[in-house]
Amino acid sequence: MKNKQLLFTPGPLTTSATVKEAMLEDVGSRDFAFINAVKEIRNKLLELAKAPLADGYECVLMQGSGTFGIESVIGSAVGANDTLLILVNGAYGERIVKMASMYHLNHLVLRFEEDEVVTPEATESFLKEHPEITHVACIHSETTTGLINPIEAIGVVCKKYQKIFIVDAMSSFGGVEMDMQKMNIDFLISSSNKCIEGVPGFAFALCKKEELVKAKGQSRSLCLDLHAQWIGLEANGQFRFTPPTLSIMAFRQALHELEEEGGIKARELRYKSNKKMLDDGMEKLGFKQYLKPGIQGHIITSFLYPEDPHFNFETFYEKLNQRGLVIYPGKLSKANAFRIGNIGHIFPDDVKSLLEGIKEVVEEEKIVNKVLS
Amino acid sequence: MKNKQLLFTPGPLTTSATVKEAMLEDVGSRDFAFINAVKEIRNKLLELAKAPLADGYECVLMQGSGTFGIESVIGSAVGANDTLLILVNGAYGERIVKMASMYHLNHLVLRFEEDEVVTPEATESFLKEHPEITHVACIHSETTTGLINPIEAIGVVCKKYQKIFIVDAMSSFGGVEMDMQKMNIDFLISSSNKCIEGVPGFAFALCKKEELVKAKGQSRSLCLDLHAQWIGLEANGQFRFTPPTLSIMAFRQALHELEEEGGIKARELRYKSNKKMLDDGMEKLGFKQYLKPGIQGHIITSFLYPEDPHFNFETFYEKLNQRGLVIYPGKLSKANAFRIGNIGHIFPDDVKSLLEGIKEVVEEEKIVNKVLS
Repeated sequence: MKNKQLLFTPGPLTTSATVKEAMLEDVGSRDFAFINAVKEIRNKLLELAKAPLADGYECVLMQGSGTFGIESVIGSAVGANDTLLILVNGAYGERIVKMASMYHLNHLVLRFEEDEVVTPEATESFLKEHPEITHVACIHSETTTGLINPIEAIGVVCKKYQKIFIVDAMSSFGGVEMDMQKMNIDFLISSSNKCIEGVPGFAFALCKKEELVKAKGQSRSLCLDLHAQWIGLEANGQFRFTPPTLSIMAFRQALHELEEEGGIKARELRYKSNKKMLDDGMEKLGFKQYLKPGIQGHIITSFLYPEDPHFNFETFYEKLNQRGLVIYPGKLSKANAFRIGNIGHIFPDDVKSLLEGIKEVVEEEKIVNKVLS
Repeated sequence: MKNKQLLFTPGPLTTSATVKEAMLEDVGSRDFAFINAVKEIRNKLLELAKAPLADGYECVLMQGSGTFGIESVIGSAVGANDTLLILVNGAYGERIVKMASMYHLNHLVLRFEEDEVVTPEATESFLKEHPEITHVACIHSETTTGLINPIEAIGVVCKKYQKIFIVDAMSSFGGVEMDMQKMNIDFLISSSNKCIEGVPGFAFALCKKEELVKAKGQSRSLCLDLHAQWIGLEANGQFRFTPPTLSIMAFRQALHELEEEGGIKARELRYKSNKKMLDDGMEKLGFKQYLKPGIQGHIITSFLYPEDPHFNFETFYEKLNQRGLVIYPGKLSKANAFRIGNIGHIFPDDVKSLLEGIKEVVEEEKIVNKVLS
């Protein structure tokens, strides 16, 4: 079955027909077939993060969106006497601040501008000033803008000061090669509907077992109890509460297809090809990017609204939509922008179709971009 | 596509091919097509509960399993100075107790035996003794056993004493005719993968607006904040965090199919026909039910293990499974039993197939049930 719409979004994104077709059979949540799929997924995810069971890592699946996975880690791993430092340069960092404050966790916030990366230097100074900090949380690919924070360098600082390092790798995991051990990451969270190219329904946390064990009894929520969820999965391979069975089956298929493509390395290359095609094409059309090229990632890009008053985002969006091309609104606090994602089951030719669509709409709407003028 | 397996479970359950096929197209989570589906679903659910918007009711969808929906209501509706009474006669009631205690809510528990219904009389006496109670929570169809609690009569008591009434109608809503207004229910929670016959991925709470409004700022969790989720849905029709897009599309199709079947009334009749077929057939095979017939619902039935030592549940389950027939393990605290569900896209002929399968396995395993002996 052909997709009617191509999604150039940060997820839920375009998935292959075969991934979706894996949802055409009902499966019991306590049945062998399902339990085996869960087991396969948990092991495979650890492998992809180069953090196998044998080296002391564990994978916990959590129902809901990626944010549910983040909340389960934040609300379970940070104990009553711990202090969490949250490194913020966008809306997803702010979201963790909100979680920490709703849970009344001891927490501190180190904020950077939205168009700047989190720096290991500032992080180190802050850690020196605040020895009470026990945990550090950071976003890898900030979907707000599209920048990629230097997680590896921040991990070095966390290791030096012996802090537990929590990484929101929501929109990067599967699309950027990562090595949890080398990067000193204790908790890495992502979701089913991002670069693994599954459908939405659950999040996953890859955890250093030593730290996961300490989360016992610390969760403030029953549903989002990371430790209890892990114990449940370990006990009988089942979820404590109804799992998104068909999303799981689709995800297993997505993992197979990731392997067929050549693993994360090959996928990263494809996304980078998409990004290159997008950058060149948008530049020709006169669109300007919000971020400086050096810190822009290959996952999603923020484009500033053209200054021409003919540009109306709603019209622009709708006209692309009529062409089966779905882009994404902006989320910047200080500038007007829209976003285009390079991830999902999309290829340079799809990006080409998008660019053709954008060109048509620009012409129809008589939008004059500076480069064109 | 034909189902390989028929699920006789309390959900995730057997769904129609067309419900699953509604997941074959990707849809953007901030796109018109999806926003319209969400709107249609929210309105339709209120209609099914005879609690329309115009009468002051609201529908909130929440990612995750049904339990996530329950936790969002319990953790948002019960304020710091409120006291929740939990009426318990099974594992799902106990689950609410666990939530209340993890959230440190003021709460009291009135427990009944697992094979007895919650009585309005005992509830009334308890409320008289504890005037501090502000909220009452009760399970409608206790999936632990399969009994149905007299929600309407308990609602009368709640109204008399002006208590907020929270009903976990997880496995009943859609399979039992309900009228939220007549039943004095303030919050009714169910999920996508129960009697509406959708696939798993989200829960929904039908709420008396007057009470929902009071939940503002009370949630202990960011993700499970019922009020914030509602405000988000009202603001732009979107979820705050990534929704299970394809489960939503499947659910909309499931609602259409419910209507085609003749609504909840017709569905209730079908489930009752399934139940009748099951009861008669299992009786002939010598299986005994755990509950007395008067309190047994038509959603799911607990059957006691035969006393014959030839009976081994794992073997029994596996041999049925090999025949494409998936039953459900037991969850009783005081007796060994397995469960068979009558809900989902299954019909009396499917129950007949199940009974034939059970007969074969009973014969193969040389299980002697008392009636047979």
